[in-house]
Amino acid sequence: MTPKENIALLRQMMQAEGWDAIVVSGTDPHSSEYLPQRWQARKFVSGFTGSYGTVVVTANHAGLWTDTRYFIQATAQLDGTGIELHKLRVPEAVDYPEWLAEALGENSTVCVDGLCMPLATVEHMQALFAPKGIKVVSRPDYIDALWPDRPALPDAPVFELGVEYTGRSRADKLVWLRESIAQRSCGSILLSSLDEIAWMLNLRSSDIAHTPVLISYLWVSADRAVLYASLDKFDESLRAALAADGVELAPYAEVMAGVATWPAEAPIYIDGAMLNYALYEQVIARYGDKVVNATSPVKLEKAIKNETEIAGFHCAYHKDGVAHARFFYWLEKAMERGERITEIDAANKLISIRKEMDGYLDESFAPISAYGKNAALPHYSATPENCSVLEPRGLYLLDSGAHYLDGSTDITRTVPLGPLTDDEAADYTCVLQGMIALSLASFPRGTRGANLDILARMPLWKYNRNYGHGTGHGVGHVLCVHEGPQDLRQNLYDQAMLPGMITSCEPGMYCEGQYGIRHENMLLCYEDEVNEYGDWLAFMTLTCTYIDTTPLVDELLTDEEKMFIDCFNTRVYEEIAPELSDEEAAWLKSKTIDCLFDVEEEF
Amino acid sequence: MTPKENIALLRQMMQAEGWDAIVVSGTDPHSSEYLPQRWQARKFVSGFTGSYGTVVVTANHAGLWTDTRYFIQATAQLDGTGIELHKLRVPEAVDYPEWLAEALGENSTVCVDGLCMPLATVEHMQALFAPKGIKVVSRPDYIDALWPDRPALPDAPVFELGVEYTGRSRADKLVWLRESIAQRSCGSILLSSLDEIAWMLNLRSSDIAHTPVLISYLWVSADRAVLYASLDKFDESLRAALAADGVELAPYAEVMAGVATWPAEAPIYIDGAMLNYALYEQVIARYGDKVVNATSPVKLEKAIKNETEIAGFHCAYHKDGVAHARFFYWLEKAMERGERITEIDAANKLISIRKEMDGYLDESFAPISAYGKNAALPHYSATPENCSVLEPRGLYLLDSGAHYLDGSTDITRTVPLGPLTDDEAADYTCVLQGMIALSLASFPRGTRGANLDILARMPLWKYNRNYGHGTGHGVGHVLCVHEGPQDLRQNLYDQAMLPGMITSCEPGMYCEGQYGIRHENMLLCYEDEVNEYGDWLAFMTLTCTYIDTTPLVDELLTDEEKMFIDCFNTRVYEEIAPELSDEEAAWLKSKTIDCLFDVEEEF
Repeated sequence: MTPKENIALLRQMMQAEGWDAIVVSGTDPHSSEYLPQRWQARKFVSGFTGSYGTVVVTANHAGLWTDTRYFIQATAQLDGTGIELHKLRVPEAVDYPEWLAEALGENSTVCVDGLCMPLATVEHMQALFAPKGIKVVSRPDYIDALWPDRPALPDAPVFELGVEYTGRSRADKLVWLRESIAQRSCGSILLSSLDEIAWMLNLRSSDIAHTPVLISYLWVSADRAVLYASLDKFDESLRAALAADGVELAPYAEVMAGVATWPAEAPIYIDGAMLNYALYEQVIARYGDKVVNATSPVKLEKAIKNETEIAGFHCAYHKDGVAHARFFYWLEKAMERGERITEIDAANKLISIRKEMDGYLDESFAPISAYGKNAALPHYSATPENCSVLEPRGLYLLDSGAHYLDGSTDITRTVPLGPLTDDEAADYTCVLQGMIALSLASFPRGTRGANLDILARMPLWKYNRNYGHGTGHGVGHVLCVHEGPQDLRQNLYDQAMLPGMITSCEPGMYCEGQYGIRHENMLLCYEDEVNEYGDWLAFMTLTCTYIDTTPLVDELLTDEEKMFIDCFNTRVYEEIAPELSDEEAAWLKSKTIDCLFDVEEEF
Repeated sequence: MTPKENIALLRQMMQAEGWDAIVVSGTDPHSSEYLPQRWQARKFVSGFTGSYGTVVVTANHAGLWTDTRYFIQATAQLDGTGIELHKLRVPEAVDYPEWLAEALGENSTVCVDGLCMPLATVEHMQALFAPKGIKVVSRPDYIDALWPDRPALPDAPVFELGVEYTGRSRADKLVWLRESIAQRSCGSILLSSLDEIAWMLNLRSSDIAHTPVLISYLWVSADRAVLYASLDKFDESLRAALAADGVELAPYAEVMAGVATWPAEAPIYIDGAMLNYALYEQVIARYGDKVVNATSPVKLEKAIKNETEIAGFHCAYHKDGVAHARFFYWLEKAMERGERITEIDAANKLISIRKEMDGYLDESFAPISAYGKNAALPHYSATPENCSVLEPRGLYLLDSGAHYLDGSTDITRTVPLGPLTDDEAADYTCVLQGMIALSLASFPRGTRGANLDILARMPLWKYNRNYGHGTGHGVGHVLCVHEGPQDLRQNLYDQAMLPGMITSCEPGMYCEGQYGIRHENMLLCYEDEVNEYGDWLAFMTLTCTYIDTTPLVDELLTDEEKMFIDCFNTRVYEEIAPELSDEEAAWLKSKTIDCLFDVEEEF
């Protein structure tokens, strides 16, 4: 089916049902960012493959709402579909609920799939729609009618991530969770975020590509814990281990009916930003006004990594550092030999090297392997049909990461494949300066990402240049590669950076039709010093992949920046070289130790 | 009466009335920062003279809540009063409404003077108190019972600030205001902020020291405008001019009864963050639920200065630059002659020089003239009884400003009076680096103070040092020296910096018992360039007072910072020297042109 045909079918359904608009959301019943195929309805309908976007269809308009990361990609993928791109995260952006509130007439009806939309989004729409009497109706799985061969639920096996990796037992976490819900005067909690459930129970699976979680709900009261998931995914020993910790198993689909069996004397704790509206309707039917709707306590607890997790992240970045050294050595030699290498060949080569590493599970997201102008799309995705060949000039950008049993990685390097233009070299330098400025920041407890973000942007802003995405995101421990609650971006979001948080730092610069640059390291926040001026925090870099210094414009760099680069590349060489072949080690030395700035340390 | 006696009297009143707590707020019926004496009840009760603070008395506790600026001063002034200091703007600070909600029992009663507390504060308390059934009662002017010789309302004459200074006629502003209220579907607006009223009507007075506003309310509908103020303050010609623009005059006190005479068919627009609760009760009695409570449209409109106002600010800073050059020349020579100069002598000398300047009206706030360790109190106020003599060593801080007919100033300079310690010199340098970094910032439209603030702090944060106040505030045009809506501070406040806004940049560093440093310039935001990456804004420095470079630690400064200082001091010399005597001009040359870093302009 083409997008045009899908839109026509949706309009037929709207007419038959008396709906004036239909929303095809870009998420699943668990508010996931990356989705199992079963819930990729927005991709199915529109053909747009980005990780973020919503399609809205009315009688005379079909639109896709997505953000800066995907403008170029969406424009290309929507071409000829009749679906219009609506841009988000730009000045005066109008999101689809506001657009609908304006576009629809009085007393209209908007259909959503309440399974694939969180309560908070429905409530936001209802508030916007109220003045015109516009109603929201929820029709779970309405997409089935258009999608006869819709994929089934995934059935990958579940495994336990042991305490040697997680640093904290399932039993301990359940004790903590029960204390948290008691503090809120609640009798139980319903978790629906897949990474929160996986973290809580130290369970992992591979239900979603690159996200080792299991499709499930978890309900926990003072004396019970019920995990709703496909029972076939658990082997005997895992069932026994869960039972030993008091975790009951129930079929995934039974959660809807299960709500009615939960004790309803005390209030239930839900997170309306994540819980889907269809399940919320069951909760309300059971609990009435005894619902505490607040951010899940697991979100922050999970973001503050413990010592075992931090040690695991160090190991993971060490492995990726080895894999990157081998990969970039191979790439340089293969280019010198004149081999024909496509963007996909390069990404596959890196994956094949990573797979040899101890404890490798999966890539943590689909690699972005982008040469030349393709890298100007921050979330470019090469396909066999549409994929460039690397040439001995310009810049090659590789943004990738892996899940190992001990930790997860997310790294971007941009490397020169030959001569660069002056603009490429200057932007390469400025972007790196931004990464360095943020990496070196020292700041008092209470400082938020919105306060810090500018440090990564100033070297570009100085020249009235900018990048249209956030600077950084939290990273889960063998979970989602993007996790909250902290972030590094301009938006005013009131979550302070805290010791134990691990956050990416990835400024970039994109010149449409020419080139794209991004440098990404991973930063661990730690407590530096307490003095009369505050409780001082700082960042430690986890990433252990060398930075190519050849494109750097010396005159733009301060001595402090040069020292940062020298220290960083020296550490990379010392940690990684012992794991390489002699040829590879010599090559890495030529990229690091032989290229130091050797600034005098006078300050 | 001593604070102890006042607290005892308040407790007697509480007992007689059946109140469990009484709040002595630090503001007036107009939410002013600086108050006429009549409404300085908190100062009268407690003896604490800072510009910000609230006293709360319960049966067994008396407390003062104030912020970081005043901790040292409040500790000294509260000594022996039995009033305990509660610190705000520190981690885990508990403000008095939260404290009361915790400390009081079920169904308690809290008395406030509803005239001297904005609606928003009362609503905030009511929401916090609701779970325990605690009530708020408003008793306007309860302080009269304790304060027999309470000052009367001020009666200074009102004058018109002509369009040659304001750049926009009263009639134009009324047309704009009427459009604004119509956009909100309101029939009228009630303004209570004194600077908003003065700005709207191009009127000024001297009812409040250092704030050239008039005590008044303004009600504007589509066809009427009524100014409630003391009628004696207006001469015949001003009455005629106001009448010509359709502005009626009514006695100040009549506003309470006046509300009942306003047409109530269409909703009324109020700003609950500023409107006092007592008057709000009248509004509610008249308008019921036809009240639109939102930020006053005047607030933002007033903050975006027009070309005439901007030209006036340039003139004002030029005058202050001349006055400062003369003052610092005098200071240096008088010190060399061994004259005995106190902090108050110095401040008075500057004021006497400023008074000779064309169009001088008043200081824009009481000067902070602080030598040595006194400067460690960011809002130190020297008194004849408690006032240091300047010595030929260490640092002297002078934070002052003036209102001229064409504009208002606010400038801080810290200057060496002789040898400095290494710490003094290093901090002097870092604080200046912070001011320079923010002054040089270029940023896309949409950037807020919370995003920018860190630039002024990074040079100090690098050494885990910090200052406990905001970095900058808006400045009114011959109005309040502190005005919103924009600011430069860490707090997440969603007001973008916009072209035409004038904002101070005043980082500092304070070492208790040793020294204090602050450098303050005034920055005009302007539109720099529009390109594919955004609509770029930047700052232009209005301040024209030289920066003493002798304390600067050369090794800490980048070439870019040195160039900023050279350009700044060169401009100061070129603009100011022609207005000085030969001796003064030669001296200013020795402080500026003769001290340039002369960095090669290679980038």
